[in-house]
Amino acid sequence: MTAVQTRSGPLDEAELAGLDAYWRASNYLAVGQIYLMTNPLLREPLAAEQVKPRLLGHWGTTPGLNFCYTHLNRIIRQREQKMIFLCGPGHGGPAVVAQSYLEGTYSELMPHIGRDEAGLAALFRQFSFPGGIPSHAAPEVPGSIHEGGELGYVLSHAHGAAFDNPDLVVAAVVGDGEAETGPLATGWHGNKFLNPATDGVVLPILHLNGYKIDNPAILARIPDHELVALLNGYGWHAHLVAGDDPATMHQLMAATLDAVFDEIATIRHDARNGAGIERPAWPMIVLRTPKGWTGPVEVDGKQVEGSYRAHQVPIPNARTDEKHRQQLEEWLLSYRPEELFDGEGRLRRAIAELAPRGQIRMSASPHANGGLLLRELRLPDFRDHALPVPSPATTTAESTRVLGGWLRDVIAANPDNFRLFGPDETASNRLSAVYETTDKDWQAALYPSDDRLGPNGRVVEVLSEHQCQGFLEGYLLTGRHGLFDCYEAFIHIVDSMFNQHAKWLKTTLSIPWRQPVSSLNYLLSSHVWRQDHNGFSHQDPGFIDHVMNKKAEVTRVYLPPDANTLLSTMDHCLRSRHYVNVVVAGKQPQLQYLTMEQAIAHCTRGVGIWDWASNDDGDPDVVLACAGDVPTLETLAAAALLREHLPRLAVRVINVVDLMRLQDEREHPHGMSETEFDALFTPDKPIIFAYHGYPTLIHRLTYRRSNHANLHVRGYKENGTTTTPFDMVMLNDLDRYHLVIDVIDRVPSLRSRCAGLRQRMADARLAARAYTREHGLDDPAISEWTWPYGETR
Amino acid sequence: MTAVQTRSGPLDEAELAGLDAYWRASNYLAVGQIYLMTNPLLREPLAAEQVKPRLLGHWGTTPGLNFCYTHLNRIIRQREQKMIFLCGPGHGGPAVVAQSYLEGTYSELMPHIGRDEAGLAALFRQFSFPGGIPSHAAPEVPGSIHEGGELGYVLSHAHGAAFDNPDLVVAAVVGDGEAETGPLATGWHGNKFLNPATDGVVLPILHLNGYKIDNPAILARIPDHELVALLNGYGWHAHLVAGDDPATMHQLMAATLDAVFDEIATIRHDARNGAGIERPAWPMIVLRTPKGWTGPVEVDGKQVEGSYRAHQVPIPNARTDEKHRQQLEEWLLSYRPEELFDGEGRLRRAIAELAPRGQIRMSASPHANGGLLLRELRLPDFRDHALPVPSPATTTAESTRVLGGWLRDVIAANPDNFRLFGPDETASNRLSAVYETTDKDWQAALYPSDDRLGPNGRVVEVLSEHQCQGFLEGYLLTGRHGLFDCYEAFIHIVDSMFNQHAKWLKTTLSIPWRQPVSSLNYLLSSHVWRQDHNGFSHQDPGFIDHVMNKKAEVTRVYLPPDANTLLSTMDHCLRSRHYVNVVVAGKQPQLQYLTMEQAIAHCTRGVGIWDWASNDDGDPDVVLACAGDVPTLETLAAAALLREHLPRLAVRVINVVDLMRLQDEREHPHGMSETEFDALFTPDKPIIFAYHGYPTLIHRLTYRRSNHANLHVRGYKENGTTTTPFDMVMLNDLDRYHLVIDVIDRVPSLRSRCAGLRQRMADARLAARAYTREHGLDDPAISEWTWPYGETR
Ligand SMILES: Cc1ncc(C[n+]2csc(CCOP(=O)(O)OP(=O)(O)O)c2C)c(N)n1
Ligand SMILES: Cc1ncc(C[n+]2csc(CCOP(=O)(O)OP(=O)(O)O)c2C)c(N)n1
Ligand SMILES: [Mg+2]
Ligand SMILES: [Mg+2]
Repeated sequence: MTAVQTRSGPLDEAELAGLDAYWRASNYLAVGQIYLMTNPLLREPLAAEQVKPRLLGHWGTTPGLNFCYTHLNRIIRQREQKMIFLCGPGHGGPAVVAQSYLEGTYSELMPHIGRDEAGLAALFRQFSFPGGIPSHAAPEVPGSIHEGGELGYVLSHAHGAAFDNPDLVVAAVVGDGEAETGPLATGWHGNKFLNPATDGVVLPILHLNGYKIDNPAILARIPDHELVALLNGYGWHAHLVAGDDPATMHQLMAATLDAVFDEIATIRHDARNGAGIERPAWPMIVLRTPKGWTGPVEVDGKQVEGSYRAHQVPIPNARTDEKHRQQLEEWLLSYRPEELFDGEGRLRRAIAELAPRGQIRMSASPHANGGLLLRELRLPDFRDHALPVPSPATTTAESTRVLGGWLRDVIAANPDNFRLFGPDETASNRLSAVYETTDKDWQAALYPSDDRLGPNGRVVEVLSEHQCQGFLEGYLLTGRHGLFDCYEAFIHIVDSMFNQHAKWLKTTLSIPWRQPVSSLNYLLSSHVWRQDHNGFSHQDPGFIDHVMNKKAEVTRVYLPPDANTLLSTMDHCLRSRHYVNVVVAGKQPQLQYLTMEQAIAHCTRGVGIWDWASNDDGDPDVVLACAGDVPTLETLAAAALLREHLPRLAVRVINVVDLMRLQDEREHPHGMSETEFDALFTPDKPIIFAYHGYPTLIHRLTYRRSNHANLHVRGYKENGTTTTPFDMVMLNDLDRYHLVIDVIDRVPSLRSRCAGLRQRMADARLAARAYTREHGLDDPAISEWTWPYGETR
Repeated sequence: MTAVQTRSGPLDEAELAGLDAYWRASNYLAVGQIYLMTNPLLREPLAAEQVKPRLLGHWGTTPGLNFCYTHLNRIIRQREQKMIFLCGPGHGGPAVVAQSYLEGTYSELMPHIGRDEAGLAALFRQFSFPGGIPSHAAPEVPGSIHEGGELGYVLSHAHGAAFDNPDLVVAAVVGDGEAETGPLATGWHGNKFLNPATDGVVLPILHLNGYKIDNPAILARIPDHELVALLNGYGWHAHLVAGDDPATMHQLMAATLDAVFDEIATIRHDARNGAGIERPAWPMIVLRTPKGWTGPVEVDGKQVEGSYRAHQVPIPNARTDEKHRQQLEEWLLSYRPEELFDGEGRLRRAIAELAPRGQIRMSASPHANGGLLLRELRLPDFRDHALPVPSPATTTAESTRVLGGWLRDVIAANPDNFRLFGPDETASNRLSAVYETTDKDWQAALYPSDDRLGPNGRVVEVLSEHQCQGFLEGYLLTGRHGLFDCYEAFIHIVDSMFNQHAKWLKTTLSIPWRQPVSSLNYLLSSHVWRQDHNGFSHQDPGFIDHVMNKKAEVTRVYLPPDANTLLSTMDHCLRSRHYVNVVVAGKQPQLQYLTMEQAIAHCTRGVGIWDWASNDDGDPDVVLACAGDVPTLETLAAAALLREHLPRLAVRVINVVDLMRLQDEREHPHGMSETEFDALFTPDKPIIFAYHGYPTLIHRLTYRRSNHANLHVRGYKENGTTTTPFDMVMLNDLDRYHLVIDVIDRVPSLRSRCAGLRQRMADARLAARAYTREHGLDDPAISEWTWPYGETR
């Protein structure tokens, strides 16, 4: 068992042989997964039909991942270190599956994949196979919280996982290609937010295997002095481990990891023993090895090991081409399976014992199945923060500021279990009350003049929506709670990260051993209608549309129109599990509609008739529906105009908080039945719907409703600039005057009869616009409008 | 005119005084824009009503931007250097507007903003004012190609602008907050793609003003040695300019810029005189100055200059609060406007003469109005690349590979005017024929084993969708052409960048002096249906939905089903102007349907009946519509099944290439009239529509059509994993058998009569699935299916 010689280093002969055997076993299992249908131990010569007909998987990254994992296991055992493993190049699924199989976790969770020859065959066959498991470090892989299909987020996830987990080390392998992505490139700065006393440790391992799919990687092709400068500049202390001779590399890696974990211990010790908290230069590793290390050196005369050609399946025709098959067989046998597995296909005892035991196995860590660790949030009663609303739509408040007061108390009540993330916008979004109880997390230099900045802050502000999202995802997937507040327009920056997280949630729903995690909550403020000052680039309500494409089981969208509905909604979201909740709410002073009691009832229904604003007595001529704070304002103002000018017109005003209610109950669990929808919106009367975002979404949600042909939606039609709030709604025909015009145009009995009123409304629009051009702000008669009719109807 | 003393440095007294005056003038104009309605020269004491009622704008970044711009002007004059200015913190609109006014460009293009007192008043008033101009470096600003509203893209844009512009210097100010974003953090690596001989120069100026909106910036709070290491590690040679005393800073900046441009000259000279091309360490500047420099030091007892409080409007109540107003007045007067403007409000001659002249003014550079420089692409005849299609749906080809051959010739014919951008996926997307004529651009280390990598490559591959998009935008906005090929799922990474570009295009349509630029073309391959190997994380067709939210004037979406339609479509896209064209096309071997002649006709119509696949004789019982290559395959297979089993059923098969055709002509310029739509899709027959993406989009496009209630759409419903191609379509009920079932369920005459066939179809699905579970691939009877009926009907 000792082809490997002892080069100088910390490992004695037996340790070296053991590590190498473990590594060979994992590589063998990886190649087996990529290639084999059966004959897992190669007891008989490899036959064509034993090779999978479709070869799908990524070899190149795999041996390096296995190398890291194997060596981390040694540290885990020696130091009893809690650790999880995040695999940046998540296409290295064969590696992480192999590792969790070697640790026994796989068979414990999936008993049909036993620890014997039949189990090995099943393990191999299922990989990237119809009805089997995906090719990536997907949710199906025990120990994974990072599928790594879309590259770039591993450091953000790692830091999120480390927050408030003082005993945890999060090992994060970064692909050298992955390192070219924007999110990863800023991900290194996560260390500016990690408190050595109260947070865990992130250990990045930059995997310089030199290549991506078809190109060299930038970081592998800059001189060492640039690379080291870059990583030091990012604030890390880089240790280089480079080479390709296994024995030498085992000694090097072991020595380096010993040094790295000593450094970590020193930093932690100092920070936790009052040496004062100063941002340390955390250690990290640069691992430079050939891509596809230990795989075929050449195939068909072309270099494979150490080149981009090792990325996927290095021997492509192993089923059909005899020579290829022979090469595959030699490759597999080079790992000496007979030394690794016994006659029954069981991993030999001596090797199996090198794995950590129990929960300390990275594949069995509860941190990687965060639902297991989930503690209920302690939620202070949001009713205590109720805004008094003496009469509907007569007083104003900044709704998010009211929410801020409650969030302050949430933070105070959950000092190690809840965080607020924002891209430098938390104060701008009017949540600054949170700073009455906590700081902004900051581990970089502090100046005496700094406000509410410090190493123990519960608010994480970094000007990277990617980092905010990635931190929060890592935090949630390891069993904690949080909220991401962001300008509505720029949340599109994380569209694709949202996709991946929603897919993760959907998939885990049907994995029995995965426990539900806390929901990912977005508060989108500074929204499209009130980015009048920043202009067109800041005006985009399309994230809601984007979210709607994901599975109904995991997505929720709320548009609370005022402070009390916002409080009630957010309480609901923070209690929920395993959703993505999108809450859109304004930060500007705005009219307040509902008392807390009314708000709770309204939010519980998700949609409701506002009686005081309606005068329909059960038989409306027209329905004015609205969703979103600004559309609600314009709808009410329109309702008042109608009551003034057309007192006999029966108007029903409906407000929608929970957008999903509009759907059919077969489409979404929150959906309304036909009957309920028809009762509310009528089967046949015109509906003028004032909506916060792009109008097509309302059609999309309701196109199957019987009254759909009568539905007329106003919303954002991508007209915007720097102007006044009312000019913004006018630019998009969402203003009160235009809504009245819409009513006149849609209610048959009004059409010709109301030409005069229609014209006055058009004139009012012109006058309103002219006012802005002259005075630079909205006519106070508009901006200071309040509901004139009290609660009577 | 010399309050400023001559500190040691390259500037003599007059030069120093001149620079300082110019800088003061620009700062004065910036403050004036933020605050003043009138009284632009403060000839009378500032009165309340002369202050804008809504104060909207960003001061903090402005003096630093003005400082850079002013000093760059000195270099431009001295060296007759062609340069453009990209303002990363684009919220510094007041600075760039002021600069283009000082250079005269503003008044040349907008004659109502003259160079006199009235012009000044108009300039001030219009800023962030209803009916005026936006607060950012928006398209409305002469000289801007980068609005910078959404932070993070300035270095990507800058490199894109520099490609193939050997005489140009692109100065790019990077906000220290902006530098925290992912795209910016990887943007520094743009230097790995810039050829010193044939490309221009990017000069980054990292603007360390210390703060963002409400927080310090990370890069301003790490020690200098880390910062310098970081920037050197990124491959730049950093020059530090730090301080706050204007005179000292002028000397320092001038001396530094002299050194920087000498370095640039040496690098260029060496590279262009055969010294061999090695990646140089390009110079860059770190400018450390107080945020809000020269503005109010304190307001209401709180520090403003040098703090985050300087970010927006430092004196908030200048209109209503007398003390504030006085402070504003003092601030404005501190720039000594009487020294800057003459009695008529004209910039004094001595100062005006410090601006460069004519096209060398950064605000007047044609490079910043790229349409002016646009040269037609030389497009080789795509018909020469026609794929022979002897009979429909009987032969296969990889459509994108065929396109690759044509793109190769496009690249060869346009060696300095067209580039292909991809995130390490160009070969994976089967476009490798381009490497027969060119390399992949690579300025980092080269190894002897490298394939098609080199400093003159026309293909830019970097594993960052943000960089690909940003490079391409910069390239297009400076008047060139290009194509971005990407996996369909991961194009969501640039959703928000697409938003910003689409907004830019829309806005420029109504700016008379902006010339149209070339379209931004996406080729999305490795699409949802054929990411069967990578699995769920790689399956997302939602970018089309995202694009649909932007203005119809600037968006186009094409789904060519085969090679010849793809060629014809792409030729059309590359000829077009000022659009975003999204083309989705598969890379896997797929059936080929149309001869080139048919393809051209089909693409010209954008939608059409496929006669050979139909048997309806003008009166169909059912319409089978399809859009996208895989849905087209399944639709044809369903049509064949119907012809076999229900030969008397009259079926019409319609294929849609141009998705916008489905819309109403009032919604989109490509939209069909009612009559045309009804003629094609019938006013009353069931339509079974097999669509590439999320089904709701087809409803969204057609919900106003008279036959909408009969429209039944199949598409991707977010079910996916690693499996076979046919299992993927079955998972989403888009398969041929399910389409037949849909026909049976929707055509009233079939419902009960065809229960047997319906059941056989359901059984066929089960059998197909079982086959995959056993063999790991699709039943050849399915995967090798071809159209059995030739061209007869
Ligand atoms: C954001 C993103 N863009 C593109 C891809 C397609 N892709 C899959 S693997 C890969 C190369 C990864 O290279 P590297 O990070 O070096 O991983 P390794 O060499 O370890 O396989 C690419 C470009 C992706 N997965 N994610
Ligand atoms: C991607 C993105 N996220 C958030 C914002 C909101 N925002 C506007 S300005 C700003 C701070 C910018 O700081 P910095 O780059 O340092 O600019 P400067 O200090 O020069 O104003 C932020 C966070 C934005 N514009 N873009
Ligand atoms: Mg790599
Ligand atoms: Mg700043």
